[in-house]
Amino acid sequence: MTEIASILAQADDNVAAGLNRLMQVMRIPSISTDPAYAPDCHRAAQWCLETLRELGFDARLCETEGQPIVLGHDLSAGSDSGPHVLFYGHYDVQPAEPLDLWTHPPFEPCVIEAPDGRVQISGRGASDDKGQFMTFLEACRAWRDAAGSLPLRISILLEGEEEIGGPSMLPFLEAHKAELGADLALICDTEMWNRTTPAITTMLRGYLGEEFTLIAANRDLHSGAYGGPARNPIHVISDLLAKLRDESGCILIPGFYDGVTEPSPATLASWDALRQPDAEVLAAVGLSCPAGEVGFTAQEQIWIRPTCEVNGIWGGYTGVGAKTVIPSQASAKLSFRLVPGQDPHVIRAAFRDYLTTLMPEDCRIEFTGYDTSRAIEMPIDSDALTRCRQALEDEWETPAVLMPDGTSIPIGGDFKSVLGIDTLFVGFALADDNIHSPNEKYDLTSFHKGIRSWVRILAALRA
Amino acid sequence: MTEIASILAQADDNVAAGLNRLMQVMRIPSISTDPAYAPDCHRAAQWCLETLRELGFDARLCETEGQPIVLGHDLSAGSDSGPHVLFYGHYDVQPAEPLDLWTHPPFEPCVIEAPDGRVQISGRGASDDKGQFMTFLEACRAWRDAAGSLPLRISILLEGEEEIGGPSMLPFLEAHKAELGADLALICDTEMWNRTTPAITTMLRGYLGEEFTLIAANRDLHSGAYGGPARNPIHVISDLLAKLRDESGCILIPGFYDGVTEPSPATLASWDALRQPDAEVLAAVGLSCPAGEVGFTAQEQIWIRPTCEVNGIWGGYTGVGAKTVIPSQASAKLSFRLVPGQDPHVIRAAFRDYLTTLMPEDCRIEFTGYDTSRAIEMPIDSDALTRCRQALEDEWETPAVLMPDGTSIPIGGDFKSVLGIDTLFVGFALADDNIHSPNEKYDLTSFHKGIRSWVRILAALRA
Repeated sequence: MTEIASILAQADDNVAAGLNRLMQVMRIPSISTDPAYAPDCHRAAQWCLETLRELGFDARLCETEGQPIVLGHDLSAGSDSGPHVLFYGHYDVQPAEPLDLWTHPPFEPCVIEAPDGRVQISGRGASDDKGQFMTFLEACRAWRDAAGSLPLRISILLEGEEEIGGPSMLPFLEAHKAELGADLALICDTEMWNRTTPAITTMLRGYLGEEFTLIAANRDLHSGAYGGPARNPIHVISDLLAKLRDESGCILIPGFYDGVTEPSPATLASWDALRQPDAEVLAAVGLSCPAGEVGFTAQEQIWIRPTCEVNGIWGGYTGVGAKTVIPSQASAKLSFRLVPGQDPHVIRAAFRDYLTTLMPEDCRIEFTGYDTSRAIEMPIDSDALTRCRQALEDEWETPAVLMPDGTSIPIGGDFKSVLGIDTLFVGFALADDNIHSPNEKYDLTSFHKGIRSWVRILAALRA
Repeated sequence: MTEIASILAQADDNVAAGLNRLMQVMRIPSISTDPAYAPDCHRAAQWCLETLRELGFDARLCETEGQPIVLGHDLSAGSDSGPHVLFYGHYDVQPAEPLDLWTHPPFEPCVIEAPDGRVQISGRGASDDKGQFMTFLEACRAWRDAAGSLPLRISILLEGEEEIGGPSMLPFLEAHKAELGADLALICDTEMWNRTTPAITTMLRGYLGEEFTLIAANRDLHSGAYGGPARNPIHVISDLLAKLRDESGCILIPGFYDGVTEPSPATLASWDALRQPDAEVLAAVGLSCPAGEVGFTAQEQIWIRPTCEVNGIWGGYTGVGAKTVIPSQASAKLSFRLVPGQDPHVIRAAFRDYLTTLMPEDCRIEFTGYDTSRAIEMPIDSDALTRCRQALEDEWETPAVLMPDGTSIPIGGDFKSVLGIDTLFVGFALADDNIHSPNEKYDLTSFHKGIRSWVRILAALRA
């Protein structure tokens, strides 16, 4: 039996126990957005700490202003073994509401068989991100159990604020730059291309969150007594939002597209096998026709084009029936997805300037800023990526695709800007995992073959 | 002592007892919009019934599908006395919320002295409409107490659904057309021009309430995963609302202005003394510049121009912080104020057609209709108006103005269309009465001189 075969056999032997360990940590409702669950976040961090120590890591719990960060190192493989890798995951989860839509209690994880015969782990965090980071920890366990040690120098960083924008992480990275001096980051928080095709995500969009409120009269007015001359902030907000995009879907904020770079021909070519007709991309959500920039397919609009989406709007009377009010204010929340070449801070300033210049008389605007992150584009010809891709192909017996993702994982950009290292985004989630929604699940194949994939990737990255 | 002097003296003698009677009915929380207060609405109707009977009216309580209507007749003055008048008021009130903003409990009425020395009756319904309709009932009482009988044939109609759009009233009018065959309606639910100048309201705008919901995807989407190609109903609603009005404030619904008539030169001239600079009209609410149709003053925009105002908008995530959702739907509530010549049903159809033709792909629209009423324009040279105006001048010792009002009192239109009679709108409310708001009040001068005004008007209308 080759070394790799013996490690994989160990991983197979461990999978039932690994599933129990995953369900242990899933039972802890580590919801970071709600202060009521802070003790649970702490419990989850403690659980991670003990697990890393059990795996032989020199681990500690680092308090922050928010939830603790768990950091562990096992550098015993030595500098000749190959790159020092930094694995990142997060132990916090989204709230479980609406609870009545769950078919099983969100924090009482269980293994269920779906109508189509797929075996799935059900519960909040199954996929995002407890199930995913546990594939890496269980791969480390298999190496340790079968080979007695890890094949590479490995550091593991598990945070508890990913679902709230990770405010503690960037200062933590700055403060621990030397200690975190790895050669390559690994993140398991992305999807496979489909149930049978593994993927490395090489491009992710950046993010910018904004909220604004328009204020006109000094109080709510009666639409009979003042309707006509009174500035109505709902009309103003509609006009402003309508002026953010033109008929062809182009965003009208001056300078918005400055510096936008297109992916290289090689990158574009690497996606050829992934292309789907627009109707197919949109059918699952009940749509048929791409609503973004004219001249791009639905996939291109998601993969490589920046967007400006309104995520929420409110103002005036929103209860049952009619109320003839002209409200004194109205508000909206927006998110921008950014592509390589766009600086979120420049876009924020341009957005605010643009709306401010459009303001009519008797109306003022107040802005609130949320998170920002730059788009991420990883080299597709690096040695590490080539080795990782082969390891995934060996496990899944089909070539691993390189794919872009329209969502944002800011930590990848932080690893690059603060630590100067690239990230390999390898995940085993599926599009139907219901992350952030009721009935979140993780396929048992994602968990089991995910562990095996990491066993192979660690071997493949060795010098 | 002349007859009128003795009736007025009786009214003066009765005013303290009348105030107690008003406070009795104000203690009943007859909130029509909340089913929990249905028994209180019934109690208020019963109180009105007993009061009319005490005044010698042949009165009864008419059950409807909603709150009861109280109807009473005293036709003993005979047909030679002059016009048979139909007085209308409403005993229902608005909810009192937000309760914490009241300086005195809303349903424990009391008499207070304002900082500027004005004596005021405080409580929900003080002005709208219990205090107002009681001025008429107390005028009838003074006539009865001093002269032994009423000077005219009088019918009194008090309803309990005015604040919810009066759904029972129109069918009631249709069903009791013969019984309600008066010559002239009197409504006490409007304002004076200012604290010292009485007014007859001769023009009121009509009303049309609409709500619509836009629906795109079959569920809420992640703005990273679908941002770009997914149709965002908040963008669509913004575009639609932006297309309702052009830069000059004109409403763009095809046919919206068809048939709109301007007031006659005589009517326009009758308002000359009322005209105020735009800045003065808007300063009280913290605004400075009319936002309606270019070419009209702020007052003209309120008095004689139709409007389309959004009263509420909502969609997506409206809680604290950011959520990167593309919602599946978004909604808005609108109200139109209409002027003479506009049919609310034609406008409704035109509005719905217009939005429907503007709908982009992958989006559908659903409409909900609320109340409608036509604008009201009363002749300004009728005999009844001239007599009434003189009576008001006699009481207030200053000419009564004829004024337009931007709000809507649908029952006036119903009296015209069903019963074929005109209405004299005479009210003693003031702009600072806080109707529909916390700390509603009615000045004691409004109540006392309001009673005296009706004493004189009833005398003046005699043949």
